[in-house]
Amino acid sequence: MSEWIKITLTEDELPKQWYNLNADFPAPMPPPVDLEGNPIGPDALAPVFPMNIIEQEMCTDRWVDIPQEVLGIYKIWRPTPLYRARRLEEHLGTPAKIYYKNEGVSPAGSHKPNSAVAQAYYNKAFGIKRLTTETGAGQWGSALSFATHLIGLECKIFMVRISFTQKPFRKIMMKVWGGDCVASPSQETEIGRRILEEDPNTPGSLGIAISEALEQAVQREDTRYSLGSVLNHVMLHQSIIGLEAKKQFEKVGIYPDVVVGCAGGGSNFAGMVFPFLADKAAGREVRIVATEPAACPTLTRAPYVYDAGDVAMMTPLLPMHSLGHAFIPEPIHAGGLRYHGMAPMVSHAMNHGLIEAHAIEQIECYESAVLWARTEGFIPAPETSHAIAQVIREAKRAKEEGKEKVIAMNWSGHGLMDLSGYDAFFEGRLTDYQLPEEQRLRSLLCLEGLPKPPAS
Amino acid sequence: MSEWIKITLTEDELPKQWYNLNADFPAPMPPPVDLEGNPIGPDALAPVFPMNIIEQEMCTDRWVDIPQEVLGIYKIWRPTPLYRARRLEEHLGTPAKIYYKNEGVSPAGSHKPNSAVAQAYYNKAFGIKRLTTETGAGQWGSALSFATHLIGLECKIFMVRISFTQKPFRKIMMKVWGGDCVASPSQETEIGRRILEEDPNTPGSLGIAISEALEQAVQREDTRYSLGSVLNHVMLHQSIIGLEAKKQFEKVGIYPDVVVGCAGGGSNFAGMVFPFLADKAAGREVRIVATEPAACPTLTRAPYVYDAGDVAMMTPLLPMHSLGHAFIPEPIHAGGLRYHGMAPMVSHAMNHGLIEAHAIEQIECYESAVLWARTEGFIPAPETSHAIAQVIREAKRAKEEGKEKVIAMNWSGHGLMDLSGYDAFFEGRLTDYQLPEEQRLRSLLCLEGLPKPPAS
Repeated sequence: MSEWIKITLTEDELPKQWYNLNADFPAPMPPPVDLEGNPIGPDALAPVFPMNIIEQEMCTDRWVDIPQEVLGIYKIWRPTPLYRARRLEEHLGTPAKIYYKNEGVSPAGSHKPNSAVAQAYYNKAFGIKRLTTETGAGQWGSALSFATHLIGLECKIFMVRISFTQKPFRKIMMKVWGGDCVASPSQETEIGRRILEEDPNTPGSLGIAISEALEQAVQREDTRYSLGSVLNHVMLHQSIIGLEAKKQFEKVGIYPDVVVGCAGGGSNFAGMVFPFLADKAAGREVRIVATEPAACPTLTRAPYVYDAGDVAMMTPLLPMHSLGHAFIPEPIHAGGLRYHGMAPMVSHAMNHGLIEAHAIEQIECYESAVLWARTEGFIPAPETSHAIAQVIREAKRAKEEGKEKVIAMNWSGHGLMDLSGYDAFFEGRLTDYQLPEEQRLRSLLCLEGLPKPPAS
Repeated sequence: MSEWIKITLTEDELPKQWYNLNADFPAPMPPPVDLEGNPIGPDALAPVFPMNIIEQEMCTDRWVDIPQEVLGIYKIWRPTPLYRARRLEEHLGTPAKIYYKNEGVSPAGSHKPNSAVAQAYYNKAFGIKRLTTETGAGQWGSALSFATHLIGLECKIFMVRISFTQKPFRKIMMKVWGGDCVASPSQETEIGRRILEEDPNTPGSLGIAISEALEQAVQREDTRYSLGSVLNHVMLHQSIIGLEAKKQFEKVGIYPDVVVGCAGGGSNFAGMVFPFLADKAAGREVRIVATEPAACPTLTRAPYVYDAGDVAMMTPLLPMHSLGHAFIPEPIHAGGLRYHGMAPMVSHAMNHGLIEAHAIEQIECYESAVLWARTEGFIPAPETSHAIAQVIREAKRAKEEGKEKVIAMNWSGHGLMDLSGYDAFFEGRLTDYQLPEEQRLRSLLCLEGLPKPPAS
């Protein structure tokens, strides 16, 4: 136990540029399109995002400078430590060496602020006064509340009503940072009022919340919308994770054989693995593995299509693996990562064979999370447990094969705000759940009639 | 914003010894005594604590080696970063420089594991299989659950029933780490059963919980009791905080003019300030300031007496500032730090003029905590807000006086598990509350007839 367990970097070693995988793809990504299949230009996005973010969304430069003010706020929790999970290795009796990047050390407790701070900064620089967004469980809403207050913007969060009621602490967290979080549907938007008139007791949905956030962003000149995952600029901002990790590995002369991340919309996964994919694109041998819940299997069981980001189809169509914008995962699923689509960049990487993906059921995830807490100490977010489960699989296989494999993982966040899932697990209220094939096919019906992306 | 905001240490720089202020007091501390005033020997404590901990409790060596296994677990979150609170300084427009040691980065979210890990280690080394303890809000119970599991002991936590019911997430947290947390009074002890027979609906109290934990520790040969604050060995273990802080200040050639900590039982305060008190004892000029809630003012309004650690008076009598073992703070107080007594070592330092103390009301504390979160990012524990309020007072005074004062603070923990207090604050449900003099005098009546410590 006298060996090192974490590699820290000083603030001076914080990367000064983000990495953009768009510069290194073997083929360019298909553009976002409208319902007729016509490519969307920057102007079409201008009511929703500021132009400097739109430019970043379309950018193919390999490196993008991180603004000084963003670096200043990153320093509150970055560089994050890279750990060696020695206690877990010992418990598993594996010859594998397990490393994890701890993104749970941010004030909001996950990787989400990496993009929230950047988005707040660019909106402020463009003269915007107020951001709107939606949040489900509350991770993104918390991160954006934190970021907007420090940058100096107002923040309005539409939180799915059922979560708003069931997770009262998330909304208090947002309020501490000055964020104005309301249950969605709300009385504050036309679409919210319409839905409440139809059904005053609706539990709400992410789709409704996105529509409310978009409505307010479009209607007010001083307001724009902010999204915590899926889009290219979010992947760009998150690349700071993998860039730091590579520096940390360099310090000890190690390069991972496999890099693992969990994937919902794709942001923490992309953030960790894209800088390693740059090496893979240049010929380096490294396995890149995404894990997702069996209840919401976009990479493993969804077709590559053009689909909208929201139920109401207010967004442009994006080229991505999608279960269909009308898809709603079963409430039995407690592990997050519930988005119907997968980030276009992650989807594109998948199509080009740069990454592999596995779907994992939730009992294995929670078992892995508890084992993690009891060996490594930190309590993982339910989302993160999907990566941990895969790492444990890899470590066990290394043991069977007697291989000294080096495994790296993005530990995307802590679970202190999500302990009710652990409670359900301990109480035996969780069961495994795999999306039934019939339901999957039904959910894809909403894609009929939409344009198709070119086969890659 | 391009200047550094935190100083990190590598694992190699982790201190290898704890510091013991007992070696540097101007006069020795009075010993613990029994009800007749006779000094208590080590054997009298043996049913409750293992002998290696008892030896540490009585130790006057200046430096005590930290065992390798404890260092190994400390490395999970230590060394903790020392921050410069530049955004807060800017907001206040103060010439003061504010530094804070972030103890919230531990898996349990506070400084408590510093002693929990050490206590678990020594008990294991002594052959003990199981620890019992009590917990109020749950900070200490969480830390001990974490520590015992990693060291390899069982852990039984008696949690005050009203907190057990009101703070369901704390007990889940303990369960994730394998701790067995039950509501107190419980059916598992004689005293618990007796109290439940008398009043099946009792909300419980810290005093009852301590009695249950002690009963189980005394009755089983493989079991001992563990306390998270107050005692000398806890102060010793916590000294790692201040030792690291001093190294960090040395790195940048700074020495603080004033060091601030909040004080309930005294452990986080002592941990931060005792290493600085070593310098003060050697002639260095530095102000050391403790802050406590006006609702539970032990250092500012309680006499220095011999008093028991628990309501049932099962513990030896300790020389300390105490409001009387029967003291119960008003439920209106939301900020923690509710213990009736103050650590004997902190009390002794107070008596010798080494430290000063201030009581602060809770609205100012919560206002300070919210300002902190909105400038520095991290959401403070309610306890920590008492230190923050004092730091803000000091910074404002420095502004009035035009002085470039260097202020250091122990940021003892994050508030993610205590957001209901913030909610009460935002909703206007909190009011200031100062312990009424009449109630203070009434609470001191339980001290009548007890032996008195020598005047110092």
